[in-house]
Amino acid sequence: MRDVFNFSAGPATLPEPVLETAASEMLNWHGCGHAVMEMSHRGKEYMSIHSQAKQDLRELMGIPGDYEILFLQGGATAQFSLLPMNLATINKRVDIINTGQWSKKAITAAGDFATVNVAASSEAQRFTCVPDVADWQLDPGADYVHICVNETIGGVEYFFTPDVGKVPLVADISSTFLSRPIPVEQYDLIYGGAQKNIGPAGLTIVIASPEMIARSRDAKVPGILSLAAQAEADSMLNTPPTYAIYIAGLVFQWLKDQGGVQAIEKTNIEKAERLYSFIDQSDFFANPVKVANRSRMNVPFTLKDPALDETFLAGAGDAGLIQLKGHRSVGGMRASIYNAMPVAGVNRLVEFMQEFERTNA
Amino acid sequence: MRDVFNFSAGPATLPEPVLETAASEMLNWHGCGHAVMEMSHRGKEYMSIHSQAKQDLRELMGIPGDYEILFLQGGATAQFSLLPMNLATINKRVDIINTGQWSKKAITAAGDFATVNVAASSEAQRFTCVPDVADWQLDPGADYVHICVNETIGGVEYFFTPDVGKVPLVADISSTFLSRPIPVEQYDLIYGGAQKNIGPAGLTIVIASPEMIARSRDAKVPGILSLAAQAEADSMLNTPPTYAIYIAGLVFQWLKDQGGVQAIEKTNIEKAERLYSFIDQSDFFANPVKVANRSRMNVPFTLKDPALDETFLAGAGDAGLIQLKGHRSVGGMRASIYNAMPVAGVNRLVEFMQEFERTNA
Repeated sequence: MRDVFNFSAGPATLPEPVLETAASEMLNWHGCGHAVMEMSHRGKEYMSIHSQAKQDLRELMGIPGDYEILFLQGGATAQFSLLPMNLATINKRVDIINTGQWSKKAITAAGDFATVNVAASSEAQRFTCVPDVADWQLDPGADYVHICVNETIGGVEYFFTPDVGKVPLVADISSTFLSRPIPVEQYDLIYGGAQKNIGPAGLTIVIASPEMIARSRDAKVPGILSLAAQAEADSMLNTPPTYAIYIAGLVFQWLKDQGGVQAIEKTNIEKAERLYSFIDQSDFFANPVKVANRSRMNVPFTLKDPALDETFLAGAGDAGLIQLKGHRSVGGMRASIYNAMPVAGVNRLVEFMQEFERTNA
Repeated sequence: MRDVFNFSAGPATLPEPVLETAASEMLNWHGCGHAVMEMSHRGKEYMSIHSQAKQDLRELMGIPGDYEILFLQGGATAQFSLLPMNLATINKRVDIINTGQWSKKAITAAGDFATVNVAASSEAQRFTCVPDVADWQLDPGADYVHICVNETIGGVEYFFTPDVGKVPLVADISSTFLSRPIPVEQYDLIYGGAQKNIGPAGLTIVIASPEMIARSRDAKVPGILSLAAQAEADSMLNTPPTYAIYIAGLVFQWLKDQGGVQAIEKTNIEKAERLYSFIDQSDFFANPVKVANRSRMNVPFTLKDPALDETFLAGAGDAGLIQLKGHRSVGGMRASIYNAMPVAGVNRLVEFMQEFERTNA
């Protein structure tokens, strides 16, 4: 067991058994005589890894059988441009809900391809909540509505699926992926980078309804940028990021061993409650997010006196608690407590915070 | 030592010491308490890996100081679309030399963004040579000339830099990358997927002159698709494929330990000569490529009687020689003998071929 707890927002901590398996299989996968990284993506060994990963993800998330699972590259950031190219093709208008930095990136990128209506925003509340759905100014002629289900920087999360009528609902779920059950059938497309709850950076997963794939096909987007073309090629229009998909597959197996997303959600609730309840009873630490919208995955917090930030980070590092510095755009601290963060890591963090408060308050 | 030699065209065999280092460092990189896959890409540990890999590549290839090195995603296939988006912006005309399947993909993709002039083609020679440069019908108003320096499927390679006058020269060097010295300063942009001589699939390297970066900047291509934007962000416009870059860095270190590209070229010549000279003296095996254009990396060959192909592949597999099946578009066999293929692997292949010929001729 390693004695460091890594609270990085992503790339993020991975389950230790996954890393151990990857290390032990590095040179010779299941006795085939070569490494996963060295496998032809058209060979039977890699194909078995690829299809098993898809199957396990479908099972874990309860993805409807007619939805496509795509293993792509370029991160959620690439999708910020590719989604409007593929989907904002009818009226070329999209609705985006602005709940923070990642929503803003989606808004900027979509603006190159469509007219963007920011149907609701919590910017006036400094991104501390999800805007009340009753106040969303939705455009019934929008090609889709886009939400960011969990804002990794601000620590704001939707714990419900908004009703947006007949307009397709598209969601960036990067940092909440697999942390709890998500009713996939209520979305037309969900997507995210792998480097939070799934695996290494360099893998992007897109899950799309048949309607969205059909729309992408009609969009006639050039080859490699087309969701439909990748769906038809089983994500092998070109060489996929095979090793990242292999690691994701090991994480899916690990998650199944934990009891799946229903079971991991219980642990995630326990970890988040432990941390938020400590912060709330403290006069020294604070989190500004509305209680109902507090992210279970990313917990930003501030110290009463920001002059103590560097002392806090140095002391935390000495205690084996690393990557707690908040995003450079907001400052303060942030503890990302994804699936692979053990309860023991959160406990040690809270103990350190208690002691820090006692000696510095 | 593993007793299997893997002749896959890509993802391809990697140096065993690289895999051993990766396995031993998997859980805990250099004592930092966490894995490379778990590192924040903005943290000092990963940043040191990223910049060391760039520096080693610059040194290995003699890349001019003002050329940018980009670590991207999406493979050469993504660049087939992104290059014309970024660079075919002045007259919107590009010259492409057609030497095989990969050239054809570049031609098709560029056609979405520019008028493509196939300035020369060896299709009438069934892609068995590089067309004589004296016969190229170059357009002096082209925004760039594109060549594929090594056709991975056909096994055809340029061992010279064509003089294309003042028009920028752009080259896909995926499967010859680092196999021999390349005069980078004679090109305006070179690029390739990593999964041949460099590392895992999911990393694409683009090396571009200041003029090409400036042109990309003027092109105002949307965010993530812009070469200039990635150059300005040191390939961190979004999370880069950190683990693939780490493995590439280990391969660069290994190659330096071998004596660099000058030294590896000697071994690559030795391996290629061993295989081609055996094929040429045999009446049973054949390679159709013009001698001066024979790839040192990918050696396609046919058996006198294609009915024996399956027997050959099965026997080779039993002898620990795997992934020898030719590309599905051309059939026959193909031995990819990249940097990481030891001389012993080629020797064992030739011995197997000799024995197979003796018993089946």
